[in-house]
Amino acid sequence: MFDLLQSALSPKSVAVIGASDNIHKIGGRPIHYMKRDGFQGTIYPINPTRDEVQGFKSYPSLAALPEAPDMALIVVAGDSALQAVHDCAARGVKTAVVIASGFGEVGEEGRRKQREMTEAARAAGMRIIGPNTQGIANFGTGAIGGFSTMFIEVPPMDGPVGIISQSGGMGSMAYGLVRGRGLGVRHVHATGNEADVTVSEMAWAVAHDLDVKLLLLYMENVAHPDILAATARYARERDLPIVAVKAGRSTAGQQAAASHTGSLANEDRVVDAFFRQHGIWRVRDPHGLALAAEGYIKGWRPKGDRVVIVSNSGASCVMGADAVEDAGLTLAQLKPETEAAVSKSLPGFASARNPIDITAALLSNSGLFGDVLPFVAKDPAADMFFIHIPVSGAGYDVERFANDFASVEKETGKPVVLASWQENVAAVFRSKGVATYDNEAQAIGVLGQLAHHAALLREPRTQWGEVAPCSLPPATGSYLHESDTLSLLASRGIRTVKHVLCQTPGQASQAFDQMGSPVVVKACSMEVPHKSEHGLVALNIQSADEAVKAFEQQSAKLKSMGVRQDGIIVAAMERGNLEMMIGARRDPQFGPVVVVGAGGKYVEAMKDCALLLTPFGKEDVMRALKTLRVAPLLDGVRGEPAADLDALADMAVRVGQLMVALGETVSSIDLNPVMMTPSGPVVVDALLERA
Amino acid sequence: MFDLLQSALSPKSVAVIGASDNIHKIGGRPIHYMKRDGFQGTIYPINPTRDEVQGFKSYPSLAALPEAPDMALIVVAGDSALQAVHDCAARGVKTAVVIASGFGEVGEEGRRKQREMTEAARAAGMRIIGPNTQGIANFGTGAIGGFSTMFIEVPPMDGPVGIISQSGGMGSMAYGLVRGRGLGVRHVHATGNEADVTVSEMAWAVAHDLDVKLLLLYMENVAHPDILAATARYARERDLPIVAVKAGRSTAGQQAAASHTGSLANEDRVVDAFFRQHGIWRVRDPHGLALAAEGYIKGWRPKGDRVVIVSNSGASCVMGADAVEDAGLTLAQLKPETEAAVSKSLPGFASARNPIDITAALLSNSGLFGDVLPFVAKDPAADMFFIHIPVSGAGYDVERFANDFASVEKETGKPVVLASWQENVAAVFRSKGVATYDNEAQAIGVLGQLAHHAALLREPRTQWGEVAPCSLPPATGSYLHESDTLSLLASRGIRTVKHVLCQTPGQASQAFDQMGSPVVVKACSMEVPHKSEHGLVALNIQSADEAVKAFEQQSAKLKSMGVRQDGIIVAAMERGNLEMMIGARRDPQFGPVVVVGAGGKYVEAMKDCALLLTPFGKEDVMRALKTLRVAPLLDGVRGEPAADLDALADMAVRVGQLMVALGETVSSIDLNPVMMTPSGPVVVDALLERA
Repeated sequence: MFDLLQSALSPKSVAVIGASDNIHKIGGRPIHYMKRDGFQGTIYPINPTRDEVQGFKSYPSLAALPEAPDMALIVVAGDSALQAVHDCAARGVKTAVVIASGFGEVGEEGRRKQREMTEAARAAGMRIIGPNTQGIANFGTGAIGGFSTMFIEVPPMDGPVGIISQSGGMGSMAYGLVRGRGLGVRHVHATGNEADVTVSEMAWAVAHDLDVKLLLLYMENVAHPDILAATARYARERDLPIVAVKAGRSTAGQQAAASHTGSLANEDRVVDAFFRQHGIWRVRDPHGLALAAEGYIKGWRPKGDRVVIVSNSGASCVMGADAVEDAGLTLAQLKPETEAAVSKSLPGFASARNPIDITAALLSNSGLFGDVLPFVAKDPAADMFFIHIPVSGAGYDVERFANDFASVEKETGKPVVLASWQENVAAVFRSKGVATYDNEAQAIGVLGQLAHHAALLREPRTQWGEVAPCSLPPATGSYLHESDTLSLLASRGIRTVKHVLCQTPGQASQAFDQMGSPVVVKACSMEVPHKSEHGLVALNIQSADEAVKAFEQQSAKLKSMGVRQDGIIVAAMERGNLEMMIGARRDPQFGPVVVVGAGGKYVEAMKDCALLLTPFGKEDVMRALKTLRVAPLLDGVRGEPAADLDALADMAVRVGQLMVALGETVSSIDLNPVMMTPSGPVVVDALLERA
Repeated sequence: MFDLLQSALSPKSVAVIGASDNIHKIGGRPIHYMKRDGFQGTIYPINPTRDEVQGFKSYPSLAALPEAPDMALIVVAGDSALQAVHDCAARGVKTAVVIASGFGEVGEEGRRKQREMTEAARAAGMRIIGPNTQGIANFGTGAIGGFSTMFIEVPPMDGPVGIISQSGGMGSMAYGLVRGRGLGVRHVHATGNEADVTVSEMAWAVAHDLDVKLLLLYMENVAHPDILAATARYARERDLPIVAVKAGRSTAGQQAAASHTGSLANEDRVVDAFFRQHGIWRVRDPHGLALAAEGYIKGWRPKGDRVVIVSNSGASCVMGADAVEDAGLTLAQLKPETEAAVSKSLPGFASARNPIDITAALLSNSGLFGDVLPFVAKDPAADMFFIHIPVSGAGYDVERFANDFASVEKETGKPVVLASWQENVAAVFRSKGVATYDNEAQAIGVLGQLAHHAALLREPRTQWGEVAPCSLPPATGSYLHESDTLSLLASRGIRTVKHVLCQTPGQASQAFDQMGSPVVVKACSMEVPHKSEHGLVALNIQSADEAVKAFEQQSAKLKSMGVRQDGIIVAAMERGNLEMMIGARRDPQFGPVVVVGAGGKYVEAMKDCALLLTPFGKEDVMRALKTLRVAPLLDGVRGEPAADLDALADMAVRVGQLMVALGETVSSIDLNPVMMTPSGPVVVDALLERA
């Protein structure tokens, strides 16, 4: 469907433009790495001042090569780099990796040069990685088109992890951290300024390397969200988890990102919603990328959220229980038989209930873990195991503990993680294949990530199929007026307030009689989107006379404002315990975004809302509603009935589908308030802004 | 003021009841440690089966000793331990450290034995540490009455840190982690079940060791909050920061704590308020205790919250900016001169604005940090410095970087922290005295802790002086009725709704005329604290006739309920944009707690409130109000005026003082709603529950 970038990932030949004999220079490192890591293709150093570079024949220019290389690394700087891109395009290079900085990240002139690069490449059918990149590395093929120092500091080992990063530094750091956990890494690719190839596109390509079992991403903006979405769908099908950092969460961070890789800002909550929708787990930093890697690679996909804690410290049991709650997990309730069996093995003052405190008695009896764990392992209530040894060393049989733990993992296939901050203790466990962490927050955080991510990936994906397009009435202003907006919503099966658009006082009087007391009278003008600020809403009108009076007042007010008069609305006055809102807008990168939340006039100040990207289903809305601060009220408190969330969710889905149906013609739709009446949600006011 | 526990911290003689020759047995370790760590007093092993233990003359019993030892360690188990406590009391021992478990933490019989221990000690004027403790250790005197394995794993070095922990494991872990950061530790004391000496009391004693410059506490409940408060006051005077873990934050954690050290549950938000009030910084775990230790010891007390970030990775700049925001800090705005000077030293594509990205060009020019840092260091906008080197190693002059950073710290006296996850890189920096961390979240989190803690300790402490006691009307039920409660509040200078308590329909009619339309009519009965649930509140009454009708309906309703009738209240109907609440109750351990928050009928469900402990001032309330979710509305939105927070804060202070004045006679007071009217807050409804 998209480019698999084979000329970058598995090139047959690599030219290095600006090749150096010094392996600590940027132009020297890639050649050194390819030589060291067994690259089987041809290496063409290009350096007009030398005959040979690191033992390879050197060429004065790209033109002098015997063939067009699959990949060319452009190590020269500034305008020479730009020229080199042109040369590569002319020579038929398939992928150019542009290491040089000073383009899109540094102002208008830089951006112009970067565009020139992209255009030259496109015209020639050449792909560009970079500029401003540390390069790419495939340890499966030995094709290393990058200069990261980390490949010297932490020797490579081919393995199941793929890392793709806008930032070379963060890619290298994730590589080092994952390798530090004893795991092999195949791919480490940095996309830099993304003049052409983005993290999303590279992720698509790497996801198709079937040896890759875990995909780690670092982004400063999400370019090509459609390709990333397609990658996530494909990855889910083949059980390839994706974990991602999207840095620039804060305003200051986004500004820094702009001067780092020239990234555009993404609204962070939309990014969250996008990752959630596509089953991508978001973490904060490269440490977060590496922490759970072993668990993913071991195939841990916990079926539940129940943790068993065992420790030789009661305090660790206390803090472990706290951490379990922090991580949104629960303590497993062991069977009475399990507790009885555990109890028999422990001294009288120890706790046989989960969290299980075997106490400092471990110092005198090294068999305690081994006595207890087999019983716990058999209990079906245990989804995951956390063992904390905050104090060990001299006098403890750590080797024996490690074997005891490793066998729980072996026998149950369930996650077993250890926290021990003492490196000499942790090392023994690691040597038996146990995943180790510094403290309970980390270890239990990893269990939480694995459990919640697995649950997220088990959620059924909503598909809407084809949504038939629909169109707005002919435009006469930026807004659709309220009555038309309500009618449009009603035509899509959304329950709106009963109302009549009146043009004369007589119609208003009639409308009152038809509607029944009390009513709301409000002016309708597509030029006045925010009526109440102008005193154009009269609530609780209790007679036809009052309705007529309000009609006349509001007509006069509109006239005095000199704005278009589309009529005066007489509407039933809906009452409910709670006002909610549903909003929708079009994000320039991610498309339609639907917002559900607490409604009313303080909606902007309170910001109590959740975001959904289309397509989504009712169950997605229900889950989003549960995250609101106002959620406890939706369940019904103080004897009030629970709100009809199913109907509210249905309404949100219909709004999302309307956004899709209207396509580029609409900018935003706001349903606020949606009154939660005893008979269900009713849209009381609505506003549509055209694109 | 309190016991300085000198017989425990600096004993002249120590008996070990249950002494062992095996240094890996609990009865062997303390003797080994005292010998190794230069204890200058006398050691008396007590073991009837041996003549000598670890080279010391052994005695058959306590009675056989030539003198009453200052301190006795009771290492024997169960009932023998209990007997040993009696023996110690009889022999005139000053402090008994009871290592044995199986007392207060394991049910009624254990609690009985623990009480027996305490009573025996009290009767003899002896102090007890424990039972169920790992013991105590003073590396200043070499008096080690504990068996922690950690004192073998990580050799002691006397120094400025004092650690006091209910849990021996957590004390040991904090010790190991602090020592691992290269700092010396003098005190490591575990209080276990706290049959007598608590963490609070031990903290008082250790705070009086003037060589101690940082006090680290681990607690599972806060016993003796008064002593801890006094300790915190004293510590603040002598610039001794206190950092504490209070574990058992969650319900599950509190249950685990009960079976660990028999701890009672503290309400966690009250614990937060207590720590805040006393300038104690709360962290999550022993890692949290250790992380900022170097900063405290170096005397870092940042005057502001502005951070400068410098990195060789643009991505680290982005994530650093995010982390600064996460930590509640700000990015320093450097002077244009500084930026210009920095800019001159950097390649054109690097960013001279904070965060400063010196880029991977560092690989070719090792002087970049040294070129840039002196300019930045001079800028007065910089309160703290964070340097991140996510990638370094071969080809980089790390030694030079470390010297460059160390000189910034030396010249400015301001905090300089480094993040580098590469141990070989970090080690070079540590060797120059630079504080190093794994990642930006940790390093910037530490800066945030230091800055916020310093600011907290600079806040003036509120003193109320003597609050004159006041008394309630004679009790005739559990509640004071609404009218009496409002009158009581009014008598304390709290603005309450205008109202009349009516006994006849005629009075109600009169009250309406007096009050002016509209009014609220509500039944008043001390037996019906929650009126609206029984339909006993009529809002928006617009005529005297309606008022009379409401009076009659409510009287009849009270009669039909068969409850006491204290009258019917006719009250002015206050209108405002926002309903707040002020509540107060008496916490069994911490005394009066005042709660301010969003009011109205959903107050329990929404839980949007902040806690304050007495005494507190208006500025404390203002700060608490800023933490509410409803805070943006208090500032005034959509053209509404800002709420009179000063008056609301004043009201909260008065409620707190009333709680103190009423003392033990009151259980709770609830002012809900406090209507935020244009002319200020007015208490519209109030309820007082007697103790």
